[in-house]
Amino acid sequence: MALDRHLRIDSQEGISFVRNIHLDSMEEDVLYHLALSNKSHDLKEIFGDVKFVCFGGSPSRMEKFAHYMVDQLKFKLTPGQTLYNISKGSDRYVLYKMGPIISVSHGMGIPSLSILIHEILKLLQHAGCDPSEVVFFRLGTSGGLGLDAGTVVISEAAVDGILRSYMEIPTLGLIIQHPAKLDEALNKELLQISEEIGCKSELGKTMCTYDFYEGQARLDGAFCDYTEEDKLAFLKRAHERGVRNIEMESLCFAAMTHRAGVKSAVLCVTLLNRLNGDQINTPHDVMEEWQARPQRIVAAYIKKKLGMEYKS
Amino acid sequence: MALDRHLRIDSQEGISFVRNIHLDSMEEDVLYHLALSNKSHDLKEIFGDVKFVCFGGSPSRMEKFAHYMVDQLKFKLTPGQTLYNISKGSDRYVLYKMGPIISVSHGMGIPSLSILIHEILKLLQHAGCDPSEVVFFRLGTSGGLGLDAGTVVISEAAVDGILRSYMEIPTLGLIIQHPAKLDEALNKELLQISEEIGCKSELGKTMCTYDFYEGQARLDGAFCDYTEEDKLAFLKRAHERGVRNIEMESLCFAAMTHRAGVKSAVLCVTLLNRLNGDQINTPHDVMEEWQARPQRIVAAYIKKKLGMEYKS
Repeated sequence: MALDRHLRIDSQEGISFVRNIHLDSMEEDVLYHLALSNKSHDLKEIFGDVKFVCFGGSPSRMEKFAHYMVDQLKFKLTPGQTLYNISKGSDRYVLYKMGPIISVSHGMGIPSLSILIHEILKLLQHAGCDPSEVVFFRLGTSGGLGLDAGTVVISEAAVDGILRSYMEIPTLGLIIQHPAKLDEALNKELLQISEEIGCKSELGKTMCTYDFYEGQARLDGAFCDYTEEDKLAFLKRAHERGVRNIEMESLCFAAMTHRAGVKSAVLCVTLLNRLNGDQINTPHDVMEEWQARPQRIVAAYIKKKLGMEYKS
Repeated sequence: MALDRHLRIDSQEGISFVRNIHLDSMEEDVLYHLALSNKSHDLKEIFGDVKFVCFGGSPSRMEKFAHYMVDQLKFKLTPGQTLYNISKGSDRYVLYKMGPIISVSHGMGIPSLSILIHEILKLLQHAGCDPSEVVFFRLGTSGGLGLDAGTVVISEAAVDGILRSYMEIPTLGLIIQHPAKLDEALNKELLQISEEIGCKSELGKTMCTYDFYEGQARLDGAFCDYTEEDKLAFLKRAHERGVRNIEMESLCFAAMTHRAGVKSAVLCVTLLNRLNGDQINTPHDVMEEWQARPQRIVAAYIKKKLGMEYKS
């Protein structure tokens, strides 16, 4: 039994989004935080054609991205109709679909993203999508290390706050380590596309923390028991080890997509250079333009895959 | 310098919400995720009278709670005016204020809550509130262990997924453990009030995990490599050790409020008994009534503190 179980878990790469023998025997699967279910919704009809799943922290940013993609893909909406938040029955995430693309918000931090990825993987499984044909993107914001603010970092690897390249999940008393690997070939293609469309990006390691303030060596949290020198020494050592930006989700994103056998990439714009400061006080319109940069790169990638002109 | 710093950190209990010598010298403090700042807003005028800060995961639940409290406190809104989301400039959290009460959403999981508590503590500090007079509540939902669904658990302690009673924050390369302590006297008072108003509640340990599926021994995630027997054995052992419910924020809530020297309590209703199943498919209206139970208890507590009749 143990061996069977093990084989079953490992043998599904490329043919299934899930690794769970219990799902087959469930009468109904309620995707609770998405307010969807395989009984109340025809998931195959709604999501059967999905090829690209784009994740981002902020609900309003992911709504904007949905409309941006409609525009970019010259996607004709049915007269009298518009996009709507398919998960509006829950207020945890927003989820939009336009053609083969899902745009979904994940909130802040690993636990919030983790719930969503579990439910998105199950959704794609119920929808009968092909794991080898689907790509996941995280389009995020981050603090940069040694880069001009506004630079997009494409994560070559995700590491935790002390540079470990795996996510730990305490599972029934065992602390299981899940390697956080990303796709080298996909990154290379994204980097080239970003050059072709004139949107500055760099490959680098991404540090992923559970805490925005002390976990990222900020001086401006409610608690701080270190000096500016301590902070800079830490960030510089991380920079010397290849870390180019810091955020709060990449480790989970890389670990869970790798585990599911789904190709994925993380593209985060840097909102500031943490070697210069901690506070974000850039004007709103400048930030908006920066936050659109990962979207522009991913839009170009999707257009390319769909055989459209993407360099303009 | 090291000693001075240490003294400064420890000596602020009861007189300050923050433990950070850097804050005094900052020209402006942007509470980024709340879309507030001590320069662009008169935080003293807006928040100077705050005595109760109520946190909950869901934005719509916390908006409802705000209006519920207006009703409960017979709080007269100015003609032509209504409550609004004070943090509407950000889409990370919603924040409402009615008299001495803040109602704020924290999203899902420790990282999302942690950012918020940092910024709320700084907000109260800028507003000149008195730490010894302010109480924080988390009003949440959870999975129960061995309890009828709908029972409110008042957390006597918060523990992580392997029963450790502290939150770890990797801080500049050191993994610092912050004890997750809650207030025994406050819990006792809440328990008595819950009896007085006929809203069933129990004291118990709360397990706080970083993962909703495997971290909580669920069988219905995208990944699961254990059997139902494994799951039940784990949950029963946790139950025998005093765990009565499982959620994703209490450890951080207890650790950060304890560290700030702010009195706090965690009240979560159980949406199901995890010893019987994993999926949540209770009718919407029943869930709504359950989710209102922690709110009823906290409303009664606040009314009592304000010298109002609270048992009706």
